[in-house]
Amino acid sequence: MTAPNKGLDELSKLYLSTRQRSVQIIEPLGDEDLNMQAMNDVSPPKWHLAHTTWFFDTFLLKTFSSDYECFDETFEYLFNSYYETVGSFHPRQKRGLLTRPNISKVLEYRRFVDEKVMACLSGNLQNNSEFQRILEIGIHHEQQHQELLYMDIKFNLFSTPQKPRYISTDLQRSSETMNKNWQKIQEGIYTIGAEPGSFHYDNEGCRHKVYVEAAAISDRLSTNGEYLAFLNSGAYQEAKIWLSDGWHYINKQNIKHPLYWQHDGEQWLEFTLHGLLPLDLNAPVSHLSFFEADAFARWSEARLPTEFEWEALATADQESGIFLESGKLHPYSDRDKTSLLGNLWQWTSSSYGPYPRFKSESGALGEYNGKFMCNQYVLRGGSFATEQSHIRHSYRNFFPSHSQWMFSGIRLAKDLT
Amino acid sequence: MTAPNKGLDELSKLYLSTRQRSVQIIEPLGDEDLNMQAMNDVSPPKWHLAHTTWFFDTFLLKTFSSDYECFDETFEYLFNSYYETVGSFHPRQKRGLLTRPNISKVLEYRRFVDEKVMACLSGNLQNNSEFQRILEIGIHHEQQHQELLYMDIKFNLFSTPQKPRYISTDLQRSSETMNKNWQKIQEGIYTIGAEPGSFHYDNEGCRHKVYVEAAAISDRLSTNGEYLAFLNSGAYQEAKIWLSDGWHYINKQNIKHPLYWQHDGEQWLEFTLHGLLPLDLNAPVSHLSFFEADAFARWSEARLPTEFEWEALATADQESGIFLESGKLHPYSDRDKTSLLGNLWQWTSSSYGPYPRFKSESGALGEYNGKFMCNQYVLRGGSFATEQSHIRHSYRNFFPSHSQWMFSGIRLAKDLT
Amino acid sequence: MTAPNKGLDELSKLYLSTRQRSVQIIEPLGDEDLNMQAMNDVSPPKWHLAHTTWFFDTFLLKTFSSDYECFDETFEYLFNSYYETVGSFHPRQKRGLLTRPNISKVLEYRRFVDEKVMACLSGNLQNNSEFQRILEIGIHHEQQHQELLYMDIKFNLFSTPQKPRYISTDLQRSSETMNKNWQKIQEGIYTIGAEPGSFHYDNEGCRHKVYVEAAAISDRLSTNGEYLAFLNSGAYQEAKIWLSDGWHYINKQNIKHPLYWQHDGEQWLEFTLHGLLPLDLNAPVSHLSFFEADAFARWSEARLPTEFEWEALATADQESGIFLESGKLHPYSDRDKTSLLGNLWQWTSSSYGPYPRFKSESGALGEYNGKFMCNQYVLRGGSFATEQSHIRHSYRNFFPSHSQWMFSGIRLAKDLT
Amino acid sequence: MTAPNKGLDELSKLYLSTRQRSVQIIEPLGDEDLNMQAMNDVSPPKWHLAHTTWFFDTFLLKTFSSDYECFDETFEYLFNSYYETVGSFHPRQKRGLLTRPNISKVLEYRRFVDEKVMACLSGNLQNNSEFQRILEIGIHHEQQHQELLYMDIKFNLFSTPQKPRYISTDLQRSSETMNKNWQKIQEGIYTIGAEPGSFHYDNEGCRHKVYVEAAAISDRLSTNGEYLAFLNSGAYQEAKIWLSDGWHYINKQNIKHPLYWQHDGEQWLEFTLHGLLPLDLNAPVSHLSFFEADAFARWSEARLPTEFEWEALATADQESGIFLESGKLHPYSDRDKTSLLGNLWQWTSSSYGPYPRFKSESGALGEYNGKFMCNQYVLRGGSFATEQSHIRHSYRNFFPSHSQWMFSGIRLAKDLT
Repeated sequence: MTAPNKGLDELSKLYLSTRQRSVQIIEPLGDEDLNMQAMNDVSPPKWHLAHTTWFFDTFLLKTFSSDYECFDETFEYLFNSYYETVGSFHPRQKRGLLTRPNISKVLEYRRFVDEKVMACLSGNLQNNSEFQRILEIGIHHEQQHQELLYMDIKFNLFSTPQKPRYISTDLQRSSETMNKNWQKIQEGIYTIGAEPGSFHYDNEGCRHKVYVEAAAISDRLSTNGEYLAFLNSGAYQEAKIWLSDGWHYINKQNIKHPLYWQHDGEQWLEFTLHGLLPLDLNAPVSHLSFFEADAFARWSEARLPTEFEWEALATADQESGIFLESGKLHPYSDRDKTSLLGNLWQWTSSSYGPYPRFKSESGALGEYNGKFMCNQYVLRGGSFATEQSHIRHSYRNFFPSHSQWMFSGIRLAKDLT
Repeated sequence: MTAPNKGLDELSKLYLSTRQRSVQIIEPLGDEDLNMQAMNDVSPPKWHLAHTTWFFDTFLLKTFSSDYECFDETFEYLFNSYYETVGSFHPRQKRGLLTRPNISKVLEYRRFVDEKVMACLSGNLQNNSEFQRILEIGIHHEQQHQELLYMDIKFNLFSTPQKPRYISTDLQRSSETMNKNWQKIQEGIYTIGAEPGSFHYDNEGCRHKVYVEAAAISDRLSTNGEYLAFLNSGAYQEAKIWLSDGWHYINKQNIKHPLYWQHDGEQWLEFTLHGLLPLDLNAPVSHLSFFEADAFARWSEARLPTEFEWEALATADQESGIFLESGKLHPYSDRDKTSLLGNLWQWTSSSYGPYPRFKSESGALGEYNGKFMCNQYVLRGGSFATEQSHIRHSYRNFFPSHSQWMFSGIRLAKDLT
Repeated sequence: MTAPNKGLDELSKLYLSTRQRSVQIIEPLGDEDLNMQAMNDVSPPKWHLAHTTWFFDTFLLKTFSSDYECFDETFEYLFNSYYETVGSFHPRQKRGLLTRPNISKVLEYRRFVDEKVMACLSGNLQNNSEFQRILEIGIHHEQQHQELLYMDIKFNLFSTPQKPRYISTDLQRSSETMNKNWQKIQEGIYTIGAEPGSFHYDNEGCRHKVYVEAAAISDRLSTNGEYLAFLNSGAYQEAKIWLSDGWHYINKQNIKHPLYWQHDGEQWLEFTLHGLLPLDLNAPVSHLSFFEADAFARWSEARLPTEFEWEALATADQESGIFLESGKLHPYSDRDKTSLLGNLWQWTSSSYGPYPRFKSESGALGEYNGKFMCNQYVLRGGSFATEQSHIRHSYRNFFPSHSQWMFSGIRLAKDLT
Repeated sequence: MTAPNKGLDELSKLYLSTRQRSVQIIEPLGDEDLNMQAMNDVSPPKWHLAHTTWFFDTFLLKTFSSDYECFDETFEYLFNSYYETVGSFHPRQKRGLLTRPNISKVLEYRRFVDEKVMACLSGNLQNNSEFQRILEIGIHHEQQHQELLYMDIKFNLFSTPQKPRYISTDLQRSSETMNKNWQKIQEGIYTIGAEPGSFHYDNEGCRHKVYVEAAAISDRLSTNGEYLAFLNSGAYQEAKIWLSDGWHYINKQNIKHPLYWQHDGEQWLEFTLHGLLPLDLNAPVSHLSFFEADAFARWSEARLPTEFEWEALATADQESGIFLESGKLHPYSDRDKTSLLGNLWQWTSSSYGPYPRFKSESGALGEYNGKFMCNQYVLRGGSFATEQSHIRHSYRNFFPSHSQWMFSGIRLAKDLT
C-alpha cells in the first residue's frame, strides 16, 4: 500500500471525522444490539468499534511510540481480527461472547487512542511519513468497517423476531424506471490496477497489461423486477441454470429467494435498514450471492463482466454515483446517477487472485488482503454504504461465492464478437 | 401438582419476595451480560427474567382475568420456553438473538405483571383456589429459574476470555476435612414419592411402594481431593472405568477434567462465581456429568445410589444442610451441615421415568415435567443455590448424562449383601 | 454368566449347528452384499461371520491353548467389536472398508477355528468346565449375531435402490384378526432375574425382589392396522403425544412413518425380507423406535409395560410362540401362538440399568453388557428371528430410544388401580 | 467439443482398445474391492465400469438408435453421474451402496453396449458424423475415468487397514537427481486454447489472446526431497506461509504431511500402487492439495504458474514425457523425459473459469465441464496415469483447492521483471 498522499492537516481532519462517524453509526442501537453476532460472518457492532481502534493501537502507537503504555493489554488478543503475525486472537465465531469490555469501556478506549494518535501527529511523528502512510491505511480500514457495520447491523436486526428498522424515518421511494443500454468495450490491451502515487491497497497492484476482447456492459444494475421474473420463471428449481456448487448450496440451505425478500400473501416485501417494505421493482436487486448473480446472468442470456472489463470501462466513466453521502442507506435507481461506481457492489466473474508481480505489504499488514486470494470472487464499484472518498476504479472487494449479506448487485455483460 | 398450601397473605408475601430476588440476582451484571447465551443449554439472564414473568402472564392472568389486556402480545412467542400446547415459540438455541425487548422493557414487564397478580389476589380471585394453586406453581417455577440463573451466569462468565467473577468479594474458605462414614438402609419395602397435600410437582407422584435391598450411602459428598486422585490415576485415559457412551463422549469432546477445573502449572484452579480460585481439596467436587460421577464411583469400588435408596435414607434425615441462605454461592464442607439435602445435587443411578400411576398435569402445564422422561438421570437433594423452602425429599431433578454445567456432585453408595 | 449347562456331546453338536447356520444365512447374498454397511449401526454380513469366529479365537483358543498359532494375527484388530480390554480395534463405522480379507478367506478362518475348537473338546480341554462355560457363551453370542445378521441384511437391502428381496419365495400371508384382551398382574413382590444354574448373561442377575403394582398387559402385540389409525390421526404432527426427545428426533430426521413403510398411491407397502409387500393390517407392527412405541401407547391411552411387569407375567406364560423355527422370517398373528415370547421384541418403559448386586463378568467379557447400561431401553421376548433355544423370560435386550432397524414391536400395558 | 477427427477404422479400434483397458485395470482386484467407496470423492471401480458404459448407452445408443431396447432401464438412474438434464440420479456419496448389479452383470452390460456400438459403426450410422463425434467424446471420457480408476483404487486400498499393493511386482526405482533450471517466457500476447479442428473439450475454447508478462518456469517438478525440507522447516505449523483457507483446512483436518506419507520411526514411507515404500527423495512430490502446493511455492520464494504461462511455454516444448505407457504407475524423475506434459498434473494459480466466448456443448453434454467453473483450480499436463494420446497442451483439468487424492504435483514459476 502506497506512500502518504495527504497533507498533515487534511489527514488529521479525515482521521477525526472517520472516527466520529463510527460512533454515530451505532447511535440508534441499544446495548444488547451492540454485542449481537447473528452468524459467524457478522461481528457485533461493539467489536467493530474496538477492532478499528485496535488497528491504530497496534500498527501505529505500539510500533512508533517508544514508551507507549497501552489502554488494556488484553485487547491485543480480544480485538485482533486475523493477524497471525501479531499473535493469537479470540475466535471470530465467538465475538458475540465478548460481553466484557462493555460499550462504555470501548468508547473510552476509542478516546484514549484518538488522543494518543493526535498527540503523535502534533508531536515528534509529524514528519514521519511511514507513520502517516499507515495512519491513512487505518482510516481506510475503518471506512471499510463502517460499511461492514451497516451490513452486519442489517443482518442482526433481520435475525431478531421483531425485524426492527435501523433508522426511524421511512425511506422516501424515488426509484425510476430506466432502460438498459449496452456500453461497448473495444478489443485491445488495457492497463489494469492502481496508479502508483495514489492511495490503494496492495491487492490493486502491480499495474499491468491485460488483453480484453470486445464486449458490452449494461449501463445500469439489474432490478428487483427483473430478478422477480427470473424467480417466477422457476429458476430456483431449475438445475441447468446454476453452477454445480450453487445448485447444491441453494438446495442444502433451502434458498428460494434473495436473503431479505419475504413473501406476504400476494406481495413481496424486502427487509431494509428502514424495516420491512414492499419490494421496489425499479430498484436494483441486492444481497445476491455469486451463485445467484451467475444464474441470473445465464438465464438472461448474458454473463457477469470480468473485473478487467469492468475496470476498462469504469476508468472512462464520468457519471455521478450513489454513495453514503446520499443518505438513503438503500440502493435505488436514479437517471442522473449512472456511474459504474456506487449503489451496489457488482459481482464480476473474476476469481480473486494476485495480479502479476503482486507483493504483499511487509509485516503483519501483509495479511490484510493476500491470504484471502482463494475461492472468493471480486466485486467492484462500492455501494450506497461506501463513502465516496473511499472508492476508486481499481478497488477490489471480494466475498465467497455463497455470501449474501453484503451490499451486492448485478451489472450484466455480454460478448460482442 | 397439588392444591394450594398456603394462606393468602403468606402466598402474596412469597410471591413478592421471589419476584424481587430474581431482579437482585442480575444486579452485578451489565446489559451485555444479560443477553448472553454461551451455549444452547444456557439461557440469557434477561430471558429468564422475562420467561418467569410470562409464566404468570400466561397461566394466571390470561387464563383467569376475563378482560385482561396483556403487556405485549409478541411476548407469548418470545418467552414461551417449550409449551407446544400454548403455541409456537422462539427456538431455544437462538435466545441470545433476542436483543429486543431490552432489559428496561423486561423489568417494566415484570412490574406490570406483578401489579396485575397482586390486584387479582386482593380482588375477585382472592378465593379462587385454582388461581392460588397455579400461583404457587409459578413461584416454585421461578425459584427453579433462580438456580438456573446462577448456573447459566457461571457458564456465561466462564465463556468470556476474562473469566470475571460474579460476586465482588472473595470466597471465605471454610471447608473442613471430614471422614466418610456409611449410613445403612435396611432391606424392605419403602414408600416413595410426595405426600398428598403438600406442595410437589407431578413427577413426584404417585406415591408408591418400592422394594429396596440392604445398602449403604456415604454421609458426605465426594471431595475435590478424592476426584483429583481419580484423575491422577489416569482415569480419563482408561476405557474400562467408563460407560461406553461416556468413554466416547469424553474422547469426542476432549474432556480431561471437570468443566471448571483449569491446570495452572503445578496447581489446579477452579472457576467459581467468585472467580478463579485454587482448588479446595476438602470441598465437594462439583459440575460433574453423570458419566464422570458413574466412572468415579466404579473406580472407588462403589456405585451411585438409586433415587429410591436416596429417598429412603433422606426421609429419616434430621441434619441441617447448605442452601442458598448460606450466602456462600459455592459448595463447601461443614461438619455441622451434613444433611442429605443441599450443598450439591447428587446424581443417582436412576433413569428419569414415570412413577406408577403417574399423571401429568392437565393442559399446557402437563408439559412441565412428563415429556422429558427419557434419556435423563435423576439428581436429588438441591444445592447451595437452592432456596431451602424450595427443596424436599421427594424432589426429582434431572439432566442428560453428559451435562456438566449444573451444580451436581457425588454421594457414593454400596451394596451390603 | 453362569457355569456350563450342557453335556459335552450336546455342546459340540450345538456348536457345530450354530456355526453352520451362520454360513447358511449368507447364502442368498452376493460378494458385494457381504461387505455392505449401509449405516453405522449395521455391520457387513462378512464382518459378522468373522467377528463371531474371532470371539472363539480370542476367548477360547488364545486363552486356553498353550501353543496355539492363530490363523492371522491382524484379525485381532480387524474383528474385535468393542473389547477395549483385548486391545485397539477397527472403528465400527468403517467396517464396510474391510474389503480384505475377502469372504473366501473368512470362511477359511471359520473352518480353521472350528477344527481347533473341536480338537480341544475331544482333547485335553474336554473336562475343562471354564472352557465349556465360555464356549456356551460364544454359542449364544453367535446366535445373537444371527439375529443381527437378519436385521442388518434387511437394512442393507432396503438401502439399495432396487430394494431386492432376501428370500426368493413369496411370504404366505396368514395373519389372523385377533381381539385384544388384558392379562392381569396381581400387586405384590416378584422375584426378577435369571435363576442361578441355568444359562444367562450377566445383565440378568442378580435375582432380586421388585414390588409391582396391579396392572394389565395386552395378550397380543399391537398391529399395523392399529398403528395406521395412529398415523392417520395425525400423530406424527402432534407434539403433545411425543416425548420431547422423540418429537425433536422425528422432526430433525423427517420421520413420518415406520422405517420400512412406503406410501404407494392409496396403498401402504412394507419392505420385508421377502421384498416390498402390501401392509398386512392384522400383523404386528414392527421396526418402531422407543419414541414411536411410547407415543403410540400414549395415544392409545395406555403405556408400555415395565420390564418387571413383563417378566412377572411372562414367567407364568404357557403358550407357544413364533421363533426362527417358524421359517417365516416376518412377524405375523396366529391365534395359536400367543406366548409373550417371540414374534417381536417388545419395548418396555424400563431404562437399561444394572440390577441390585450386578457384577460384570471378569476380564474382557465384562464389557459384553455392563458398559452399555446408559441411555438405552429394555426390550423383552425375542422375535421371529430368534432361535427358540436362545430366548428366556429373564433375557434383556436393549437399544437406544431412536433405533428402528431391529425387530421391535409393542405390547401395551395399563394401570389397574 | 469438436467435429470427428479420426477415420472410422481408427475410431473403432480406439473404442475397442479403450473399452478393453478399463476391464484390465480392475483385474488385480477382488469383488469386494470393486464396490468400495472410501470417501465421497471416490467412486467404486465397478461404478466406473458401469458409468462409462452408461455414457455410450445414453448419449449414443438411446439417442441415435430408433428402436433401441436398452439393457436395463434402471441403469439410467444408477449410473448417471451428474447430468441433471438426463434425469435424476443415484447420490454420489452412496455409490458404495450399489451392491446390485454385481460385477458380472456390469461386465455383461459392457459387452452388450459394445456390440450395439460396433453394430452402429458398421451399420446405418457409419456415415453419421455426429454419432462419431460423440463416440470420440465417449472414448476420451472413458480415458479420463481410467485415470480416476487408478486414483480411486489407490485411495481405497490406502483406506483399508492392510494397505495392500495394487500391482504385485515391486517398483523398480530409477529416480535421478536433477538440477532445476528456469525456462523463460517472453513478455507479449499469446494465443491460448485449443486449435479448432483437433479434438478437445468445450472448456479449452474459445481460442483467445492473453497478455503474459515475462516469467520463468522450472524445467522439472519439485521433489519429495524439497518438500521434505519444507515440512522439516516447520511449514505445517507456520500460518503466514498459507492461504487463510488452507491454514484453516489443514488445522481442522489435522493435516501434517502429504496424504500418502507415513512416518515410520526415523524414516518416511509413501503409499503407492506398489504398496508402502521408502520415500524416494529424487522423485516428484505428489498428491498435494492446491493449498500445499501454494504454500510450498511461497516458502520457496517462487509461485505457481498461471495456466496461460504454462500453456505459452508448453506449446513450444519438444521433450518426451512420462505417461501411462511407461508402465511405472508412479511418478519418477528421468533426465530424458523432461516434457512439461506428463509425470504429474501441475497445479496452476488459475481459478477454473470460462474462456472468452466460451459456449458449453448443447444438451446434456453441456454439463460435462461448464457447471464446475467455480471454486476450483486448473491443473495442466497429465500424469503417469494418463494415456499419451489423451493429453494435449490446451487440456484443462480442475480440482477443488483441498483435494489431495489425484496425481498432482508442483512446477514452480517466478516473475522476471
